[in-house]
Amino acid sequence: MMSPTRIEADYLIETAFDPRKAAEAMAGEQSSGTFVPIPGETPELKERSAARIESLEVIEEVDEPSLPGAGHPRGQGPTYRRARVTLSWPLDNIGPSLPNLVATVAGNLFELKQFSGLRLLDMRLPSAFAQSYLGPKFGIAGTRRLAGIEGRPIIGTIVKPSVGFGPDETAALTRTLCEAGIDFIKDDELQSDGPLCPFDERVRAVMRVINEHADRTGKKVMFAFNLTGDLDQMRRRHDLVRDLGGTCVMASLNSVGLVGMIELARFTELPIHAHRNGWGYLSRCPMLGWSYVAWQKIWRLAGADHMHVNGLSNKFCESDESVIASARACLTPMFDEKPCIVMPVFSSGQSAKQAPGTFAALGTTDLIFAAGGGIMAHPDGPAAGVASLCEAWEAATARIPLAEYAKERPALAKALETYAA
Amino acid sequence: MMSPTRIEADYLIETAFDPRKAAEAMAGEQSSGTFVPIPGETPELKERSAARIESLEVIEEVDEPSLPGAGHPRGQGPTYRRARVTLSWPLDNIGPSLPNLVATVAGNLFELKQFSGLRLLDMRLPSAFAQSYLGPKFGIAGTRRLAGIEGRPIIGTIVKPSVGFGPDETAALTRTLCEAGIDFIKDDELQSDGPLCPFDERVRAVMRVINEHADRTGKKVMFAFNLTGDLDQMRRRHDLVRDLGGTCVMASLNSVGLVGMIELARFTELPIHAHRNGWGYLSRCPMLGWSYVAWQKIWRLAGADHMHVNGLSNKFCESDESVIASARACLTPMFDEKPCIVMPVFSSGQSAKQAPGTFAALGTTDLIFAAGGGIMAHPDGPAAGVASLCEAWEAATARIPLAEYAKERPALAKALETYAA
Repeated sequence: MMSPTRIEADYLIETAFDPRKAAEAMAGEQSSGTFVPIPGETPELKERSAARIESLEVIEEVDEPSLPGAGHPRGQGPTYRRARVTLSWPLDNIGPSLPNLVATVAGNLFELKQFSGLRLLDMRLPSAFAQSYLGPKFGIAGTRRLAGIEGRPIIGTIVKPSVGFGPDETAALTRTLCEAGIDFIKDDELQSDGPLCPFDERVRAVMRVINEHADRTGKKVMFAFNLTGDLDQMRRRHDLVRDLGGTCVMASLNSVGLVGMIELARFTELPIHAHRNGWGYLSRCPMLGWSYVAWQKIWRLAGADHMHVNGLSNKFCESDESVIASARACLTPMFDEKPCIVMPVFSSGQSAKQAPGTFAALGTTDLIFAAGGGIMAHPDGPAAGVASLCEAWEAATARIPLAEYAKERPALAKALETYAA
Repeated sequence: MMSPTRIEADYLIETAFDPRKAAEAMAGEQSSGTFVPIPGETPELKERSAARIESLEVIEEVDEPSLPGAGHPRGQGPTYRRARVTLSWPLDNIGPSLPNLVATVAGNLFELKQFSGLRLLDMRLPSAFAQSYLGPKFGIAGTRRLAGIEGRPIIGTIVKPSVGFGPDETAALTRTLCEAGIDFIKDDELQSDGPLCPFDERVRAVMRVINEHADRTGKKVMFAFNLTGDLDQMRRRHDLVRDLGGTCVMASLNSVGLVGMIELARFTELPIHAHRNGWGYLSRCPMLGWSYVAWQKIWRLAGADHMHVNGLSNKFCESDESVIASARACLTPMFDEKPCIVMPVFSSGQSAKQAPGTFAALGTTDLIFAAGGGIMAHPDGPAAGVASLCEAWEAATARIPLAEYAKERPALAKALETYAA
């Protein structure tokens, strides 16, 4: 893989105008274009900084605009053409700055009157970006080392109810899960430091359980404590988790934002479990916003170690195809010298049943496979829930049908009877 | 105005299911709901933290879903009902934390299978939030004091081309604009610290011009330097602007994110000009994302002093009605004890022609009125451009028709001939 010398971004556009003219408007708006000619601008000066159309391919035509507010040429019944467009910018327009990259590839474009649809599909960055940002400090190898799990997915779960549990109830649930053989537990994204479950008390209560369990069994369960908050709060919370022997912290990306994540990544001494809640508002309209393939690159370079990708047959609206594309993206190197590979986190309505499909699509076990009901609602209890997931992944990696593998394994057999997906 | 004791958020939803059942799913997902019953949860514990449906009003029915991926009840041709829903949460679920507020009111909701559309319309916060965050340090009064402008809008413009100009060209343009009588100039959001126009050199060159002009005329033009970047960069850049006598800094909200903005607001000694580039991907789909009325509250409380609201007859897709609703929101108090009023910034294709409509809709001159071509492309030059805007606002506030006021004022008369909008 060669990194490009210019910043490149791929878009899906929809326009009633000549697609090339519309793409030129995008390129102009996001670089040296001006609305009216301005004293002092020269062709040389504009050329030096201009965004370029690298490619443009019309893919289909539709009768109705996807989004309201777009213009169309006068004097004809409009049809709307969809096209894939690649733009590029000189790195020197902004330098290797993630916040300014966002303003450049995803700034004022989405409101331009030329477009009845505009979505950022992917981007490729010059290697100077790899030198400016840390990328994941732990990634797959570091996470596996801290969790003590090799050769299979890290089996995880979430503290539920999201809110309602205090520190003692959270610790009691953690004890149950430790005894059930879990590898990984995460706080819910709704629970950081609410007065009903203060962060410090929760961490102390939970780490007491995890450390006792580790002393007894040699296995230290990884707990992703949700430290989402203001910067000073995140720093203090991180230090507490580290000081008590914790091995992971969690942050909500759309809550802390890019500068928050860059700072957290700089000071963290623990893997960052990156939660994408709110992702729907960035992506759910097919002709607007961000694809996950583009979006996850920003956060990986900033320093995320684990990135949520939803799961097959999930309880949300996302298709399986989209989920797998997201997970593959997380596992694809960004730069030769700094691949920034992160662990994809599968969750949402997951049970033993999704293991074969997930493995078949990805061809790797380098992932966190998180189930809530898939563990806690197993008829024979959480230990059987965890066992059923491990067994399902053994079967998947050995390419043995689940039903066959379940014949001698009651935990898996019960899971296959119990869960719908 | 009484602040509520619970966090309240208003949504527009679209669903093929019973709207109340769908709203219950929202409330459950964002508080103490669980996908399957979990050991340890009790009715008391769930009730303590549960989100509540405060109101629900069905407003219309449509045949087609606005967004793909939604489910519908079996055995019937689905119709989709739209409703306004207000949910509320106990403050104690999260405490007065802006990042955790975002995860609560705008987290995993947008992807729920129950919904073919979901948009956050507004929210109201308990007064504990006003105690936890600074709000604007300068706001309208502080900005007017630093700019030296009272009783009329602050007339502004933008450095264009966005990229292409180096420090010397930017300073030369600044000189032209100072001599033309401008009040306010902003960097483009694409220009922060690119190698072709380094921040430090640009600030030094521009402040030399502004300070000389101030020494000569007594008027210090406010320049919003775009310091968008990593936290340490923003801090250093802010200090340079302050040390050189600058009076404003600018940041791209969607680039720095919430933690970046909260930190900037804590250390800034200058007003923060908050740029909303990327806003389109959050809002342009009418049945998804954020309304500006909800979104701007986050940033005002975090500490923005000026918020972009687009402009009447703009070159983007937004309707005039939406622009005015945004500007009114910026001027509406958030809390009795901390109103967090910010200066709305009108821009995009603005000229003398939009002054009467803007004043009629808002009833105030507490705004920044920014024009690019409306100043630079005036046939008689930038001084005539600035004069035409001042004259247009004099006419607007005196409720004299522009054409009449222009009779004895050639700058305004030429502007009315020149600009389309």
